[in-house]
Amino acid sequence: ADVRPGVRKVYVELPQPTLEDHVSDMARLQQAVGQFKISLSELRQLPAALRRGDFKGTAVLTDEWLIDFEPLDTTKHCYGAAFDVGTTTVAGVLLDLNTGTEIAVESQMNPQISYGDDVLSRIKHSASCPGCLEDLRSAIVGDMNAMISKMCLHTGVNREHIYEVSIAGNTTMEHLLCGIDPSSLGMIPFIPAHSAGLELKASELGLVINPQGMVYVFPVIGSFVGGDTVAGILSTQLDSMQGPVLLIDIGTNGEIVLLHDDKILAASTAAGPAFEGARIQCGMRATDGAIEKITIDDDVRYAVIGNIPAMGICGSAIIDIAAELLRLGIINATGRLISRDSLPENVPPAIKEKIRLNDKGQLEFVLSGSSAVGDVVFTQKDIRELQLAVGAIRAGVNIMLKQSGIRASDLQRVLIAGGFGSFIRRTNAQRLGLLPGEIDHQKIVYVGNASLSGARWALLSMDARRHAESIGQKVRHVELSLDPQFQMEFSEAMLFPAQTQ
Amino acid sequence: ADVRPGVRKVYVELPQPTLEDHVSDMARLQQAVGQFKISLSELRQLPAALRRGDFKGTAVLTDEWLIDFEPLDTTKHCYGAAFDVGTTTVAGVLLDLNTGTEIAVESQMNPQISYGDDVLSRIKHSASCPGCLEDLRSAIVGDMNAMISKMCLHTGVNREHIYEVSIAGNTTMEHLLCGIDPSSLGMIPFIPAHSAGLELKASELGLVINPQGMVYVFPVIGSFVGGDTVAGILSTQLDSMQGPVLLIDIGTNGEIVLLHDDKILAASTAAGPAFEGARIQCGMRATDGAIEKITIDDDVRYAVIGNIPAMGICGSAIIDIAAELLRLGIINATGRLISRDSLPENVPPAIKEKIRLNDKGQLEFVLSGSSAVGDVVFTQKDIRELQLAVGAIRAGVNIMLKQSGIRASDLQRVLIAGGFGSFIRRTNAQRLGLLPGEIDHQKIVYVGNASLSGARWALLSMDARRHAESIGQKVRHVELSLDPQFQMEFSEAMLFPAQTQ
Repeated sequence: ADVRPGVRKVYVELPQPTLEDHVSDMARLQQAVGQFKISLSELRQLPAALRRGDFKGTAVLTDEWLIDFEPLDTTKHCYGAAFDVGTTTVAGVLLDLNTGTEIAVESQMNPQISYGDDVLSRIKHSASCPGCLEDLRSAIVGDMNAMISKMCLHTGVNREHIYEVSIAGNTTMEHLLCGIDPSSLGMIPFIPAHSAGLELKASELGLVINPQGMVYVFPVIGSFVGGDTVAGILSTQLDSMQGPVLLIDIGTNGEIVLLHDDKILAASTAAGPAFEGARIQCGMRATDGAIEKITIDDDVRYAVIGNIPAMGICGSAIIDIAAELLRLGIINATGRLISRDSLPENVPPAIKEKIRLNDKGQLEFVLSGSSAVGDVVFTQKDIRELQLAVGAIRAGVNIMLKQSGIRASDLQRVLIAGGFGSFIRRTNAQRLGLLPGEIDHQKIVYVGNASLSGARWALLSMDARRHAESIGQKVRHVELSLDPQFQMEFSEAMLFPAQTQ
Repeated sequence: ADVRPGVRKVYVELPQPTLEDHVSDMARLQQAVGQFKISLSELRQLPAALRRGDFKGTAVLTDEWLIDFEPLDTTKHCYGAAFDVGTTTVAGVLLDLNTGTEIAVESQMNPQISYGDDVLSRIKHSASCPGCLEDLRSAIVGDMNAMISKMCLHTGVNREHIYEVSIAGNTTMEHLLCGIDPSSLGMIPFIPAHSAGLELKASELGLVINPQGMVYVFPVIGSFVGGDTVAGILSTQLDSMQGPVLLIDIGTNGEIVLLHDDKILAASTAAGPAFEGARIQCGMRATDGAIEKITIDDDVRYAVIGNIPAMGICGSAIIDIAAELLRLGIINATGRLISRDSLPENVPPAIKEKIRLNDKGQLEFVLSGSSAVGDVVFTQKDIRELQLAVGAIRAGVNIMLKQSGIRASDLQRVLIAGGFGSFIRRTNAQRLGLLPGEIDHQKIVYVGNASLSGARWALLSMDARRHAESIGQKVRHVELSLDPQFQMEFSEAMLFPAQTQ
């Protein structure tokens, strides 16, 4: 798509006013750049801004508004920031709006995690005291500001040259960062405050960019299928594909989108934060020090992000290790870690060595020992967390397919999205039952953080933004928990498939 | 014109959300009242507001925005306030937007007068210290809020049921109340910051009405012909009249508008505040206690507003007394008060008695003696102030007519506007030379505070508001001070015309 962002800069050299040419400052500028609206605070600054540069300078415009007038020609300096605000992880990028280039990237834990690690506990917390919603709001906004600071620091970009921010998040995250009471999201019949996207002032939201800067908050589909899913559909162009196509965005909530017969259905399922490394004993985000890929032959082989000693394990490697242990019979179909002396004979001795009892008397598998930060292990409890996550997503997939009368083998493509590691090894995902085994694994594509990509698109192209709004209206929300088969599907999907090796 | 205000209220009974009908709160309301935009602060309140009344209540909408959702059916309570902010006098009315009825009216001195009594001294003051502009801004906005309070108090209107305010003022007053630096208005080439009207939030401006209420600030024509003149043209419908027509708005600045050959010219002339009672020893605004009408036969006869003892004299009576004294030869053509013993013989003895020397040794004419607040007098110095005011306006009229090649006798109508008293006696105005004597006095019409009427129209009709914008663009600003003949015309016009009795 063409880079045609919401913000444009125009350098102008206006004729100086004279007694014969005495139109107002605002009209003089409009003669050069076209009509615009102006806020009172910007209008207060305009006369001095025009005169500071002898009526030469750079107008900063959105589709409707004049948001700044800067001395000299600053057209080269035009930036925006895009955010994916997840329940567990927040990712942001800084973009050069002239070229569309990504010049910095940051990710971190969502600081709201100290108030609960899933959306329901955050919703509950927000109602638990008069200042609690504000605590949640200021925590996330404060950290987004800090991420912007870091990205500016790394690139030398002047913060005032960031004119727009786009934000995609699940519905609860969007409500919380906007300071909108999310109570109705958490109780039947699960109603969000808004569904269309929001065009706000950064100052209303508390984001510190150019003082007149704007924010676009993605439209949401329903209470549990939010702007991140809209952004994912936008960036993957799912809606223009030849169906049936499945998009699974694996995060603390797993969002499942099915395109079939020109209809798009979307559902959400509470996977928990295991894939993002939370609730996993040595889990961590996909950042320096995280084991991101694991294979087992006669020993455990792994790759660490940043090529430094292993400090923990991130989502993609959690899938790997579980799949490998399952393949070797070290985990059985119910998810139980087998003790050393009950293991199949073909398990190599070096691998057997890695199974041990921890001080709570539970089995764990040692991935990397004696590093400075202690052993990196994968525990029986971690496997249970993974089973819940896998079960929730797979049950959702099964129900969506059934409701649409589609078999897994009919799917033309399966898109896996999420920011949980380098990429997902498709056969490992199928081995765990996260994806149906019947799907030709060539049809499975890992698309990375599709939500962040969508947020980036919306920043770079107003057409994309309009498209996002139409996606928000087109997609139908399916409430999985209402399906009588959900519990049954879920318990079945928690069991790992029989291993064919 | 039809009453079709910018604000409308719609009572709705929305279907309660269910698991099957789970659109967002905002979309649910839009299904009932049509699309709207919403500010973040209003969106934050919407979910609770809808639920408080079980999804029944009254939506308050402007053309674009949802500004409130109130419990119960409040459609009957819909108010707006219109203001004319003059250099000397501020007038406001409270309007019922359902009926267009004016339900309260207030007027008072512009509190900025303590910073200087003409626009140039206010402009100068605003630049004289870092907080000076803010002092001027908060003085006027504070008093407008107090006027709104009084009007609410007198009528029992709930302040939150005032949703919109319209403001017409001269260009400097509009800049100051918006907190826009007026420096460029006061120096060549005299450039305003804006010319189109401004649609602002009341909260941006500091006006205390409904928290999401709006403000419309009139478009201006040039640095010295402002929104008050636009409003005057709007309410008098000057632009649709058969020309040539003259509109003279008498205030601290006299604005003169000439319609001729489908062109509209407007100019401003510094009349000083005499007609509003300022700089006049016993001058006062047209309010209770003010002498508003004077005739002289064998004694002085006068009418006092409110039928209470006279406390001072307002604009219309200042014209009367000067015209009567002139008719009797007590003032000569140069404006000099004649001492008792040099008076023409036909001056009645009771009138002669009223001429005396004050303690500064200057002549004065006693209008009313021994009232509780002291004598009400009209002094030699008052006459000089009046001569300056009359001279400035008449010089402006003469130059406008000359520049357009029109004689005074060609005028089809002369509209006199201003809030300076009950009305102006046309023959008295002509006697002083304020208006050319050649005009058939039947063609002279007093139209009252045309600026305030225009502000009221803009509140009651969006069509009127659009019309105001087109007037703002159509009228051509004439800079009188640039006309080489201005000084000559001014000195001549300061002399009173020869009296024909």
